Amino acid sequence: MNINKKTDPIGVFDSGVGGLTVTREIMRQLPNENMVYFGDTARVPYGSKSKDNIIRYSRQIIRFLQTKQVKAIVIACNTASALALDVVKEETDIPVMGVIAPGAAAAVRVTRNQKIGVIGTEATIRSHMYSKVMEEMMPGVEVIGKPCPLFVPIVEEGFAKHHIAEEVIDYYLASMKESDIDTMILGCTHYPLLRSRIMKYLGDGIELVNPAYETAMELRKLLKGMDLLNEGGSRGKETKGEEQKGPACANGSYEFYVSDTADKFKQFANSILPYDIRTTQRINIEEY
Amino acid sequence: MNINKKTDPIGVFDSGVGGLTVTREIMRQLPNENMVYFGDTARVPYGSKSKDNIIRYSRQIIRFLQTKQVKAIVIACNTASALALDVVKEETDIPVMGVIAPGAAAAVRVTRNQKIGVIGTEATIRSHMYSKVMEEMMPGVEVIGKPCPLFVPIVEEGFAKHHIAEEVIDYYLASMKESDIDTMILGCTHYPLLRSRIMKYLGDGIELVNPAYETAMELRKLLKGMDLLNEGGSRGKETKGEEQKGPACANGSYEFYVSDTADKFKQFANSILPYDIRTTQRINIEEY
Repeated sequence: MNINKKTDPIGVFDSGVGGLTVTREIMRQLPNENMVYFGDTARVPYGSKSKDNIIRYSRQIIRFLQTKQVKAIVIACNTASALALDVVKEETDIPVMGVIAPGAAAAVRVTRNQKIGVIGTEATIRSHMYSKVMEEMMPGVEVIGKPCPLFVPIVEEGFAKHHIAEEVIDYYLASMKESDIDTMILGCTHYPLLRSRIMKYLGDGIELVNPAYETAMELRKLLKGMDLLNEGGSRGKETKGEEQKGPACANGSYEFYVSDTADKFKQFANSILPYDIRTTQRINIEEY
Repeated sequence: MNINKKTDPIGVFDSGVGGLTVTREIMRQLPNENMVYFGDTARVPYGSKSKDNIIRYSRQIIRFLQTKQVKAIVIACNTASALALDVVKEETDIPVMGVIAPGAAAAVRVTRNQKIGVIGTEATIRSHMYSKVMEEMMPGVEVIGKPCPLFVPIVEEGFAKHHIAEEVIDYYLASMKESDIDTMILGCTHYPLLRSRIMKYLGDGIELVNPAYETAMELRKLLKGMDLLNEGGSRGKETKGEEQKGPACANGSYEFYVSDTADKFKQFANSILPYDIRTTQRINIEEY
């Protein structure tokens, strides 16, 4: 086992761009942390794929991230957190965390009537992972899950602000709106990008939980507990071409890797993150 | 080089289910042919991915299909036809054909004003392959391309008959409708499943070309020319568990392979094909 240092980066991965909403929260809440992000743009989306493929993909990505001397790994993807976290956590000699437990913890804290909605990909909802985790935290909690498979392409193809998004939201969420849930988890990292429209559609009676925010808070606790929280140091090694400094609000050094072309990834990332990614590097993830 | 027989199957592949619209046409027009279909459900969609990944995927699939003693291969995917056909054709010792040349040939035959629209994935449109091929066939032809990335998820998530499909069609095709094209190619194998709605939207002035139909006709010519057309023989070898006979309108034996779970694939296939697929087999395509 390698001995990690505070200045070592955090590894973050997702099937594509969705995990950038988690990255954004980590940048905000842990502005001194260095990060290595991997977006699996060659194999996106994960939400319609099988458990064993998602586990295989996650293992490859973790092997890749470990070549970057990361001190901890965040699976910034609900589908991979639901299907692969339990398995890969056991196999990995550094901490690996997902987005589901933090999101579930926030939802049980927020709800007053113990009735919680969860929206996500087909694979996430079918796994019932949010229900299982919340049932452990709050026995008797009632959970209503709803897969919303069109939300990811709606976001990725730039329709989040188009009126088509409203119709798709109505199509998927009419039953949630009519139910008596008081809390709903945005159980896919793309969904925070539809947050304001979903909030407007559901009205004041339903509180939305964004696991990204909670994940960054949990990550801070985890690093603090292991005495690995970076409170200001730089990486202390030669920076590579693709590494770059963030602005004042995000002081770390950030590296972005993808498994397919980066054009769309960069464009998307630059619309989400608090600064412009200048370079990304493409790797062949099947080699790991 | 293996010596192929008339009763050997035709290999057909696509990124997922879209190629089944081509399979359907082959079943209709060449009802005695046996077929081995591969749907790359683990790596779908292709339309947003890079040329070198599409070439790598196509090579692996061709290697897999050749283990099934196929006598010819149809790339039943516009994106792979646009990006990989030229390369893989040269490397393969049996005929490999795509859907673009047949679709292009039909469009130049149909047009009266030499103004043709093409809709497809981002990768297909960006490749300008339809334009290049049509320009060779009809110098001076004017081609207007339009990527429609949301059409694939709209079809795959079952929205083809929902009014959301109409709005998405209006979003992408308003400019086509206002242009003076008289012919438009459905340049993605999913799009024939939106054909009636697109036709209704565009009106009588624009003729739609479905390359699937033309591809099956070209395939017949190709097989005939090589004296490999199957006019009634069975495969003449032990059938495997996954092989099955079609109904009267499709007399061949058909095998279906996928690279991820088959549930959705089967459900979708059974809504498109003239009979129910009972079994599919999953393979690890990365091993080829």
